[in-house]
Amino acid sequence: MLMREHPLTRRDLLKRCIRMGAGATFASLAADILWARLARAIEEAAPPEQNLPPLEHTLPNIVIINADDLGYGDLACYGSTAINTPNIDKLAQEGIRFTDFYACSPVCSPSRYGLLTGRYPARIDLNLALMPTNQPFKVTLAEAFYHTLGKIDLLDLGSAGKARGVPKEDITLAEALKQKGYNTGIIGKWHLGDTPEYHPNAHGFDYFYGVPYSNDMIPFPLYRNEEVIEQEIADQGTLTKRYTEEALAFIEQSKDAPFFLYLAHTFPHIPLHASQDFAGKSRGGLYGDTVEEVDWSVGQLMEKLAASGSDNNTLVVFTSDNGPWYEGSPGGLRGGKGMTFEGGFRVPFIARWPQMIPAGSVCREAAVNIDMVPTCLAIVGTEPPPDRVIDGKNILPLLTGSGKTPHDIIYFYNCEKVEAIRAGNWKYHRRRNVYVWPSSLQKKGPWLFDLESDPGERYDVSGKYPDVAAKLERMIVEWEQQIKR
Amino acid sequence: MLMREHPLTRRDLLKRCIRMGAGATFASLAADILWARLARAIEEAAPPEQNLPPLEHTLPNIVIINADDLGYGDLACYGSTAINTPNIDKLAQEGIRFTDFYACSPVCSPSRYGLLTGRYPARIDLNLALMPTNQPFKVTLAEAFYHTLGKIDLLDLGSAGKARGVPKEDITLAEALKQKGYNTGIIGKWHLGDTPEYHPNAHGFDYFYGVPYSNDMIPFPLYRNEEVIEQEIADQGTLTKRYTEEALAFIEQSKDAPFFLYLAHTFPHIPLHASQDFAGKSRGGLYGDTVEEVDWSVGQLMEKLAASGSDNNTLVVFTSDNGPWYEGSPGGLRGGKGMTFEGGFRVPFIARWPQMIPAGSVCREAAVNIDMVPTCLAIVGTEPPPDRVIDGKNILPLLTGSGKTPHDIIYFYNCEKVEAIRAGNWKYHRRRNVYVWPSSLQKKGPWLFDLESDPGERYDVSGKYPDVAAKLERMIVEWEQQIKR
Repeated sequence: MLMREHPLTRRDLLKRCIRMGAGATFASLAADILWARLARAIEEAAPPEQNLPPLEHTLPNIVIINADDLGYGDLACYGSTAINTPNIDKLAQEGIRFTDFYACSPVCSPSRYGLLTGRYPARIDLNLALMPTNQPFKVTLAEAFYHTLGKIDLLDLGSAGKARGVPKEDITLAEALKQKGYNTGIIGKWHLGDTPEYHPNAHGFDYFYGVPYSNDMIPFPLYRNEEVIEQEIADQGTLTKRYTEEALAFIEQSKDAPFFLYLAHTFPHIPLHASQDFAGKSRGGLYGDTVEEVDWSVGQLMEKLAASGSDNNTLVVFTSDNGPWYEGSPGGLRGGKGMTFEGGFRVPFIARWPQMIPAGSVCREAAVNIDMVPTCLAIVGTEPPPDRVIDGKNILPLLTGSGKTPHDIIYFYNCEKVEAIRAGNWKYHRRRNVYVWPSSLQKKGPWLFDLESDPGERYDVSGKYPDVAAKLERMIVEWEQQIKR
Repeated sequence: MLMREHPLTRRDLLKRCIRMGAGATFASLAADILWARLARAIEEAAPPEQNLPPLEHTLPNIVIINADDLGYGDLACYGSTAINTPNIDKLAQEGIRFTDFYACSPVCSPSRYGLLTGRYPARIDLNLALMPTNQPFKVTLAEAFYHTLGKIDLLDLGSAGKARGVPKEDITLAEALKQKGYNTGIIGKWHLGDTPEYHPNAHGFDYFYGVPYSNDMIPFPLYRNEEVIEQEIADQGTLTKRYTEEALAFIEQSKDAPFFLYLAHTFPHIPLHASQDFAGKSRGGLYGDTVEEVDWSVGQLMEKLAASGSDNNTLVVFTSDNGPWYEGSPGGLRGGKGMTFEGGFRVPFIARWPQMIPAGSVCREAAVNIDMVPTCLAIVGTEPPPDRVIDGKNILPLLTGSGKTPHDIIYFYNCEKVEAIRAGNWKYHRRRNVYVWPSSLQKKGPWLFDLESDPGERYDVSGKYPDVAAKLERMIVEWEQQIKR
């Protein structure tokens, strides 16, 4: 059962938070911390003798900002010396920054599916970016050629999969939060299906302003809810500003209920466009300009939240859907978008929530974007639906500064295949493409990397630890045998 | 004229050192430093009233250690956390470490040609690794197929070029030093031709112990001078030790004259092999084991030099022929072996020479392995042959801690084509392969990178600085028009 209908007291909420959040081993420590924090927050917000405000007002707002193809090394707070990101850096200073956070896929659509449903995209056979339904015939033809090259291994492409969007049966984070009384809005890039049954409005979002997929696809329309308000976006350089204005208006209009805002930026995906205020300003080129404009947008949002008095009880998350593509920096990690090396999967993740998250924290535990669903459900005091597997885990203890990663294993899919897994600091790659001169598609492996001494995945130690490699290979086989789609 | 026959006095030598070493702009400063250092060295070595020892005893020994496919990030003193290299680190502590040193090619043979002749390999149309003359027919067939794929752009290969080895007309560093009375030895990998006319003994080396080319080639024989002493090396894990023993013996036998030792290790080129003493010891896997064995070898050499009393007047250089291949770390730089990104060209470079190089220095000026010839010629007080272009520059002022890079432009060849150039902190790439998902061979460009803010070549700023991009493009065109082979 996904939602409970009877009203929750704060204490109920807290108990559930703790029960779900802490896990067996770390329950006690996490509970202490949660108790202390929430008790202090409640005390500050309302003295015990007062009547508590209705529940819906105490639930935190949730804002998830998702950049597109932004690399692990593209933010100043992750080491960039080329791009200035003062507003995002401030989020990190006032909240927590994760060093080992992963997208659940190295490409757009599957990564977004995992973020919004908590499930590995392999469960619905969603492997690659979804293409527009009504794209020009020549593009369909090109795509078919592209996949043919993939099949004969001249491109690094597997099966595109059978999914055409997020299925009706799936419960998105928006649907779950809506049942708790949240106003739900998506502004920006959806990319989980472009026909009516797959529209955001059909999957829990009260409001949609944005685009159905990536900005290199044709056609490229702009929607407000189900209505196309621009058949072909004339100037992509206006998008970040327009998204931001819409986001501010959405916050403005959500004063009477908690809100969930999913702000999915179009940039720094190619083709790159920045507004006149940002074009040519960054030392990181046009790519950097678009990132600095996204950073400006974050600043606008935070100002609005502060002005509305709700920023103390708003969880703001900033992350990216996968690693960098032609430009953008993986921050010294190997590979990028589309690859199961760390550069394809590891992304920035920052969370700010003053009532719960200690300022200036850094979390070095591994987590995945599929964790957002169970974590947010724990925060609002509900449980994931019991009739399906939710692969994500509640990482509230990590956010609040305690506990260890709840993931024994993290799976790295290249299309329909598990190509690598991480267990502790081990990263094991099956036979895989390595992108080296003279051919990018030379197959090598198996490779075992010790991410602690070798975060760049540069030194195979499978010869030194054959038992570890064999064990991790067995784990992949077991997973493949038991995964239910 | 390459060599002068009349004997040089120390003062002559010093004057020439200064004249050649300092260059027009920095002559005065460099001269002061050189004067002071050399004067002190002479004073310490022999009081003025004593008779000076004969000239040949005052010339420094020169040792160049060249690793194979060792990446910019594979040494502890260049940031590796996986590989321990205490002996090489100690070289850097006692000498100078360059941050912006380049091979002149991203592959073996042309890089070695440039190191030993001071000329860009394009001058003799040497573009790729030379293949064995007597390799099995099936390998020749595979190679032909390989180049066919290169021609239709499915592999990143251009023309292999017409050179079959270092030409007779070229004057190698060994030939030049031999004329100054040096004992010259190459121990390890030659890879500049495997037929008699190309043998090291025919190009200035008194002694050769080693292999004609890379260890993944067939056949793989071991030579002592012109004699094959092992038709097919039975255990490659013995090579580093055997090279080291030979090097120690060479030093031992060179007591009566200055010596030039070119120790060109076979590792960490694939296939990887380490001796039993090192296999399985490193946290950097078998790759790391081989690097740690090379480091051990450096330690043995330095002990021997110290024991022989000549280490104060020996220039010891440690570098690599190009960036890392399947394994190995480019230290956060983009790309690797075979590519014109920094990861393919930028390599470690450490030089120790207590009499001349201040301990613990770091040089952030750009230099190239073709600089070794004019630098060593300046050190021994002779001039490069006037009948040909020497592309390298004398970097003695950089070694001794003064001056700026003598290179206005550094050229980055991918096979027969200039694919990129560096001028100051600008790195300009023409249309080129970018090695990104889904295909490694997508062509992009032109790209302009600001290496100061963006050493990883991640942010194209050609749109922001179109004039710079256009100017650098013109420079390439001019170079191509005037380069004489």
